[in-house]
Amino acid sequence: MSEKTKKNNMDAVNLEELLEKKDNAALRKVLKDQHAADIAEALIRLSAEDKIHIIGLMSSERASEVLVELDGQERYELIHNLDEKKLVQIIGIMDSDDAADVIGELDEEVAKRILRAMPGKELQEVRTLLRHDEETAGGIMALEIVSVNQKNTAAQALKVLRNKAGEVDDVYNIYVVDDAGILKGIASLQDVVLASPRAKLEKIMDREAVVIHTDLDQEEVANLFQKYNLVAAPVVDEKGRLVGRITVDDVLHVVEEEVSEDFTRMAGITDDDISEKSVFKISSVRLPWLLVAFVGEMISAKVLNHFVPVASGTLDNIILATLFIPLIMAMAGNIGIQSSTVIIRGLATGDIHLRDTGRRLIRESSVAFVNGLVIAVLLCGMIAVWMHQPRMGFVLGFALLIVLFVAGLTGTLVPLILKRFHVDPAIATGPFITTSNDVLGLIIYYSIVSSIGGA
Amino acid sequence: MSEKTKKNNMDAVNLEELLEKKDNAALRKVLKDQHAADIAEALIRLSAEDKIHIIGLMSSERASEVLVELDGQERYELIHNLDEKKLVQIIGIMDSDDAADVIGELDEEVAKRILRAMPGKELQEVRTLLRHDEETAGGIMALEIVSVNQKNTAAQALKVLRNKAGEVDDVYNIYVVDDAGILKGIASLQDVVLASPRAKLEKIMDREAVVIHTDLDQEEVANLFQKYNLVAAPVVDEKGRLVGRITVDDVLHVVEEEVSEDFTRMAGITDDDISEKSVFKISSVRLPWLLVAFVGEMISAKVLNHFVPVASGTLDNIILATLFIPLIMAMAGNIGIQSSTVIIRGLATGDIHLRDTGRRLIRESSVAFVNGLVIAVLLCGMIAVWMHQPRMGFVLGFALLIVLFVAGLTGTLVPLILKRFHVDPAIATGPFITTSNDVLGLIIYYSIVSSIGGA
Repeated sequence: MSEKTKKNNMDAVNLEELLEKKDNAALRKVLKDQHAADIAEALIRLSAEDKIHIIGLMSSERASEVLVELDGQERYELIHNLDEKKLVQIIGIMDSDDAADVIGELDEEVAKRILRAMPGKELQEVRTLLRHDEETAGGIMALEIVSVNQKNTAAQALKVLRNKAGEVDDVYNIYVVDDAGILKGIASLQDVVLASPRAKLEKIMDREAVVIHTDLDQEEVANLFQKYNLVAAPVVDEKGRLVGRITVDDVLHVVEEEVSEDFTRMAGITDDDISEKSVFKISSVRLPWLLVAFVGEMISAKVLNHFVPVASGTLDNIILATLFIPLIMAMAGNIGIQSSTVIIRGLATGDIHLRDTGRRLIRESSVAFVNGLVIAVLLCGMIAVWMHQPRMGFVLGFALLIVLFVAGLTGTLVPLILKRFHVDPAIATGPFITTSNDVLGLIIYYSIVSSIGGA
Repeated sequence: MSEKTKKNNMDAVNLEELLEKKDNAALRKVLKDQHAADIAEALIRLSAEDKIHIIGLMSSERASEVLVELDGQERYELIHNLDEKKLVQIIGIMDSDDAADVIGELDEEVAKRILRAMPGKELQEVRTLLRHDEETAGGIMALEIVSVNQKNTAAQALKVLRNKAGEVDDVYNIYVVDDAGILKGIASLQDVVLASPRAKLEKIMDREAVVIHTDLDQEEVANLFQKYNLVAAPVVDEKGRLVGRITVDDVLHVVEEEVSEDFTRMAGITDDDISEKSVFKISSVRLPWLLVAFVGEMISAKVLNHFVPVASGTLDNIILATLFIPLIMAMAGNIGIQSSTVIIRGLATGDIHLRDTGRRLIRESSVAFVNGLVIAVLLCGMIAVWMHQPRMGFVLGFALLIVLFVAGLTGTLVPLILKRFHVDPAIATGPFITTSNDVLGLIIYYSIVSSIGGA
């Protein structure tokens, strides 16, 4: 056995080489032997056409494993290019929670057709899961569980486990219920195996184990898993009936999402920002934050104007420009932090690679340009109306646009360059970006103002 | 069985009530019946004396479970108040990885005495673990594992499991090795139980499972767990010999730590910042970031001075003050973000509660005052030496100190107030704090400059 981290890169290369050679036999072998997560990672780099080709070479079971490993946006694109008959097969094999996730992502019309084509039992399960809020325990639980009546013995429990072997993977616990399906306790597989075969489950089980209600928010679910070091936990409905289980792999993603969400919110971006591709969509999500700051910094300008009166004349154009220093700095700071947070987050999760540098630069500077333009037009209008100086409004708006465009570039480039030289992008980015944006921004701003604003 | 989230609060209250009543019998019962994580949580609120009393009422085994659940600073204080003989007993019962963690936290002299008092086998294990870097796979692995030779059968594997039942908890996998101890594969407990008792392990095991090297950084370990949805993974040395295992509960904390670390670094604080109690220690950790920004913003002032020439006279004192707008804003922004990040992080992890508001305000404003004073003295010196205006240096330095003190207060109060009104502190804090600090800061700054700087 070799270490996984080293193997991954080799896998990825092979997939592309084999595609070029059209060696379907070799491809089939790789697709069968490699871990689904590795295949999913390799898939991302392929063209839409090659992706469909690759999925076609897999068994439905394999395809379902690989689809589960893909991220939202990637999966969405792939699914909508797949033949619907094949899709029904693939989704039918998935665990209920994964099936519900995938169907929840489909366009409504497609989802309806898929649900109509699914066999009765699976349909029932997916419908049950779709009823719960996506971010609650009910939304992340799986319905596949091993449950046994409390009056049964350890030997009988192992028999149930054997019968369910095809349906339920990763069994760590056996859930013990009464005749009405009410959860009474939990017995770890280890305890059941080590108990006397004739011991009753009610004697083996732990009655004090952690139980999760379907309505519990996923962040609180994650907190319970962390606090009590859980690997899996049963989920019950309002009457205490066992309805599903949550496993720790679902929670790992929740922990990362929730911590990340806190910070990306502070920076005025969203987690989807990393995978989202439309410049206008990203711009519109980030803009409200910039507008809040814009309004605030216009108040700053008003405050400054109270202390620093502006007359007219060349030097006073420079003084007029100083009123908007807080605005320039705050905007450049926000745009720089938005870009750098997206990059740092993406580098940490592995969603952004150094080889994407060019693509990221184009995307982030486009977003900075679009939002810069909105803010610049607003500033130009405010100065024209408020101060009756339309010409200076145009000059300052133009200067602001250039400063913000540069701030977007710096925010993107600095973390990528630090990563390139093996410096932790997070540790040096904060003060570095803010401060260098301030200095650079002021030089650009005043150079433009003094050269074209002086006439 | 009831839901854990509701039960917790009741437990905490009971512990304090029973202590007051000196009802040791009832306390012993609670301490035996409740989950170690709940006891640890209740313990935090007690006085040092009560903590020792409570630990004294537990069995050594229980005490070891509770100690493992406590956070760094809390554990450090408790351990150093405990009787060393009792401590040796408690540490002796812990899993090797936990024991190594606790000993790693002790003062060197105490650690040496504890190690000297430990029995041979445990001493050996802890020594092995302490050799690895704390943030690598070797540093977070446990040495307690169930390993079986590949030539043995499923029935023999279950026998080994039975023999190790007292030593190893939470067995999900049986690790299969050859005669030299080289890891050959992994068999899940489920697969071993379901296999024919006479089946050889080499037929049951998975040869392609994920294997982790002792030197792998813990962040990469966490990435592997997430990518491959692992519950446990074997750790091997450079020769491929099985040396330990990592379980997912260790990794959950790593995921949260690493994501959090990325962001707290961007804000110029550390994760320890939340639990650290010494104002001077916190100040000194945060200061370097502020100094980086100070140097950068002095360059900003130089740039501004190039475009906005300063003569002497009353109005020109106001113009002189504008040169330092970038400095004022950047410093207030950084100090506000440092405070608010600590509070938001602490609220999310549950380390900070609304009832701590008073204590946090005092702490954060003290830190802002200490660092504000350092920066203010620097500014005063720079203006006196660079611009030969010692009086204005004093005025601007004083104004800066007040602005920074207020920024620390705002950064602390805003997230706490938002939380109080059930608004997510993260979503509204970013732009709110920065912008309000800018407006407030400018008002304070110019009010002080124009009232005492004009003479």
